[in-house]
Amino acid sequence: MGTRKYVIGIDFGTESGRALLVDVANGSEIAEAVHPYANGVIDEKLPGTDIRLEPDWALQDPNDYIEVLKNAVPAVLKESGVDPEDVIGLGIDFTACTMLPTKADGTPLCFLPEWRNHPHAWVKLWKHHAAQPEANKLNEIARELGYKFLDRYGGKISSEWFFPKAWQILDEAPEVYEAADRLIEGADWIVWQLTGVEKRNLCTAGYKAIWSKREGFPPNEFFKALDPRMEHIVDEKMSRTIYPLGAKAGGLTEQAAQWTGLKPGTAVAVGNVDAHVSVPAATVTEPGRMVIIMGTSNCHMVLGTEEKMVPGMCGVVEDGIIPGYFGFEAGQSCVGDHFAWFVENCVPAAYEEEAKARGLNIHQLLEEKAARLKPGESGLLALDWWNGNRSVLVDAELTGLLIGATLATKPEEIYRALIEATAYGTRVIIETFEEYGVAVEEIVATGGLPNRNKLLMQIYADVTGRTIHVAATNQAGALGSAMHGAVAAGKEAGGYESIAEAAKHMARLRDEVYRPIPEHKAIYDRLYAEYLTLHDYFGRGTNDVMKRLKALRAEILAR
Amino acid sequence: MGTRKYVIGIDFGTESGRALLVDVANGSEIAEAVHPYANGVIDEKLPGTDIRLEPDWALQDPNDYIEVLKNAVPAVLKESGVDPEDVIGLGIDFTACTMLPTKADGTPLCFLPEWRNHPHAWVKLWKHHAAQPEANKLNEIARELGYKFLDRYGGKISSEWFFPKAWQILDEAPEVYEAADRLIEGADWIVWQLTGVEKRNLCTAGYKAIWSKREGFPPNEFFKALDPRMEHIVDEKMSRTIYPLGAKAGGLTEQAAQWTGLKPGTAVAVGNVDAHVSVPAATVTEPGRMVIIMGTSNCHMVLGTEEKMVPGMCGVVEDGIIPGYFGFEAGQSCVGDHFAWFVENCVPAAYEEEAKARGLNIHQLLEEKAARLKPGESGLLALDWWNGNRSVLVDAELTGLLIGATLATKPEEIYRALIEATAYGTRVIIETFEEYGVAVEEIVATGGLPNRNKLLMQIYADVTGRTIHVAATNQAGALGSAMHGAVAAGKEAGGYESIAEAAKHMARLRDEVYRPIPEHKAIYDRLYAEYLTLHDYFGRGTNDVMKRLKALRAEILAR
Repeated sequence: MGTRKYVIGIDFGTESGRALLVDVANGSEIAEAVHPYANGVIDEKLPGTDIRLEPDWALQDPNDYIEVLKNAVPAVLKESGVDPEDVIGLGIDFTACTMLPTKADGTPLCFLPEWRNHPHAWVKLWKHHAAQPEANKLNEIARELGYKFLDRYGGKISSEWFFPKAWQILDEAPEVYEAADRLIEGADWIVWQLTGVEKRNLCTAGYKAIWSKREGFPPNEFFKALDPRMEHIVDEKMSRTIYPLGAKAGGLTEQAAQWTGLKPGTAVAVGNVDAHVSVPAATVTEPGRMVIIMGTSNCHMVLGTEEKMVPGMCGVVEDGIIPGYFGFEAGQSCVGDHFAWFVENCVPAAYEEEAKARGLNIHQLLEEKAARLKPGESGLLALDWWNGNRSVLVDAELTGLLIGATLATKPEEIYRALIEATAYGTRVIIETFEEYGVAVEEIVATGGLPNRNKLLMQIYADVTGRTIHVAATNQAGALGSAMHGAVAAGKEAGGYESIAEAAKHMARLRDEVYRPIPEHKAIYDRLYAEYLTLHDYFGRGTNDVMKRLKALRAEILAR
Repeated sequence: MGTRKYVIGIDFGTESGRALLVDVANGSEIAEAVHPYANGVIDEKLPGTDIRLEPDWALQDPNDYIEVLKNAVPAVLKESGVDPEDVIGLGIDFTACTMLPTKADGTPLCFLPEWRNHPHAWVKLWKHHAAQPEANKLNEIARELGYKFLDRYGGKISSEWFFPKAWQILDEAPEVYEAADRLIEGADWIVWQLTGVEKRNLCTAGYKAIWSKREGFPPNEFFKALDPRMEHIVDEKMSRTIYPLGAKAGGLTEQAAQWTGLKPGTAVAVGNVDAHVSVPAATVTEPGRMVIIMGTSNCHMVLGTEEKMVPGMCGVVEDGIIPGYFGFEAGQSCVGDHFAWFVENCVPAAYEEEAKARGLNIHQLLEEKAARLKPGESGLLALDWWNGNRSVLVDAELTGLLIGATLATKPEEIYRALIEATAYGTRVIIETFEEYGVAVEEIVATGGLPNRNKLLMQIYADVTGRTIHVAATNQAGALGSAMHGAVAAGKEAGGYESIAEAAKHMARLRDEVYRPIPEHKAIYDRLYAEYLTLHDYFGRGTNDVMKRLKALRAEILAR
């Protein structure tokens, strides 16, 4: 047994799980291992069968999560040479809402031969979008009956969330719904597998299952109004006991100790969500600094001392990110995805050749060319709605727009305009928060993009007028989970009393800082004014052409 | 001397001149030869010097035109084996307004050593756009003083036309203006070189120099209001005697006979413009059928029996296309150019490879993929303003717009949306003409695009709801010129009495016809309604974002 203590964070992502072994004292990342899910995202056929899935379905295999425990955790122990005795705690974060039906003992229905061939018995991944009809009905009924909880979620419950998904099971497969003793988030299920106890975390309950500290879940009458068979869903298949973030769910079971190579009884924190757990890992444990997780999409998180109803936010949850504060979340549905689409569909062969000849990837070449342009020089402006608008319009039917093209327009100009458009989208979110009393003085960025695209970071600083720091870790999810593991272990065992204290010791920023360049900001202010006019014209009902085009497309494809 | 008679048409284009030898009896195209201009479009440096041109300048060398006479005409005689005795006439068409300053004997100033190094001494090509300040002032003054002639030109005189170009010479090089005994269209200058006589044609006078049969040129007071030194420009440097289309300018001089290999005295028609001369070559000599010359840009021409003031048309000129009718012209500034821009800047390497592997050019591949889409399926809509809008908005400051993009949008969908956008633009022109009493029952297409893109032709038929015929000739300009040569030769010499009679014998349509498909038309009617809304929102002043973006770009580039 050494004098140094360690914690492990496990980040359950969309395609793989990642374990990170961290020094409790200073947050040093000692070892890291990734284990891909054998069945990945299941969106065509149920594994081992010819059973086809409908469009918009996205499932997962819970066994893939167990395999992460069996492979990635032993791997970090082996790589680091750390004595399992010195690992004092374990935390996990998960995609959400990613949910599954289980028996009373936690056995997933899809593990049972009698249900294995039934799609509804498997895990519904966060990006399973087939519960849209249920989400629509839920929102309509909630609005009609005057439920105020909608306000906490920007006015709309997403089809990605818990109750639409549960309701879809009931609608389409009542026998599966009936057979499910429990309906549970993946985050809570994996903690159950680690500790043997079912303890549900506050973050997923608050952001994905309409729970709040003050009001609990919506009343049974609400669920009855959706479907009489759902009246008692919370009491029958869920739990009203919700555990705060950083709480210890329990100790590792003998079996989980065998899977992981850790000691039985090692402290395990209650589950958390990948985005939210990144906030303290990005050093943020107080109001004023917004954390933006920048990747395929953007997730914006900021803390406040009061519950504010901010239009178009994804949710506000008391204690939902950091205990003691209201955690606000907003999002942009298409950021890195935007650039990936552009590179795949719109970059000419000559650019590919130039990149190849110069040993760059195509994003690097485009960034280099785009960085030579001054703000305003392209004459282009875009609305960043290639995948709809999450915040603040909450409208998946909106589509992308590019304006200002001429015969002299170059690919790097379009590329830059798309980056700028996502920055304007972030500015709309920031200004909406501030307008409703939630301060955003600075930004801390994390996720994949800040490492890869300095131009993008500078544009975000120039457009938003905010200084942007970058979290030191490249694995904010796993580090945040490890930090929660240290809190679950507690101070006596060598961990920390609170996540704020853990953050002080374990989370850091990089030296690089992006500060707004005043001359750029002045030009972007003018362009942002144009963006806002178009944003409202196309996004707030003056001209619903985007929706009509999308509806016409659906009509034609259905013929 | 044979029994068959022939005529030659020479089409002076932007990059080259083309001679076509045609059988007078039936319009058969016997031989064709192209001679490229050695100095092409001069837009960087004056030939043989280091003298740089300003942006927006575009000059030509008149000697290049003479070289076409010396090379292309002998080439068609040689290729065909036709006896020069049997060539009864010659007609020419030219780009316009393409104008130059000359001495009293027709010698271009730029041929003289003392002026050779002066850019203003050279030919100003149609696409010389540096006279925009003069055009703006001219329009402003004409509006202020209440001159009605503006109405005949859609409300605005273009910077490409005769008087702005002449005025630019005076503004920037009064010594050149002073030294110029004559200011003359290339079309008239080349006829002068062929015949030894200066005879100015009605088409360029009417469409490019504000002349009309009933009113002549604007009065001297108007020119005086522009600049007192210009008061007598018409009488001093031009001519008030304007010759109708098809008139014989004269016979070939000895020298021109030597250049061309034709007989001295061969009848030469007065000059004409490339677009306008194509109308009878496309079989149209009466109202009701619109001729669209489809190439890098679209030029729309239709005949009427009355003078109508149609908003946004390029011009209405009595006898300007076919004697006896009012000739209306409209245009779209960016059609083939649109697709060329797209292919160069937006088509991914994978498509280039597929095209190569399958032995297609990239346009063919895109057409094939786009043709598999149904109307409305892409969910996209574009405003075809990549090069501004000529008709009906007459606004060069407008720019392109694409709306409806998603992460599933494919290059062929954008390509098809651009084609559709140009078709909507044509429909706006057609509907505006009809609204103002000029009938457009059918379309006859000519130019480069109809041969190359059947999908485009069908989309135009579906969007406009008009049957589209295609002119049989691939060289409507040269054929039309040859037909005018046959009229200049006259019936007694084996030619024709009128251009209508010439068209009856010498012009033909292809068998292929594009008819509107009712189900497509119904969908395009819905999309066209969306196009019109955006057209008016961005094009008629509700939201001038395009102009502001363009102005900002110019401001940034000027810093």
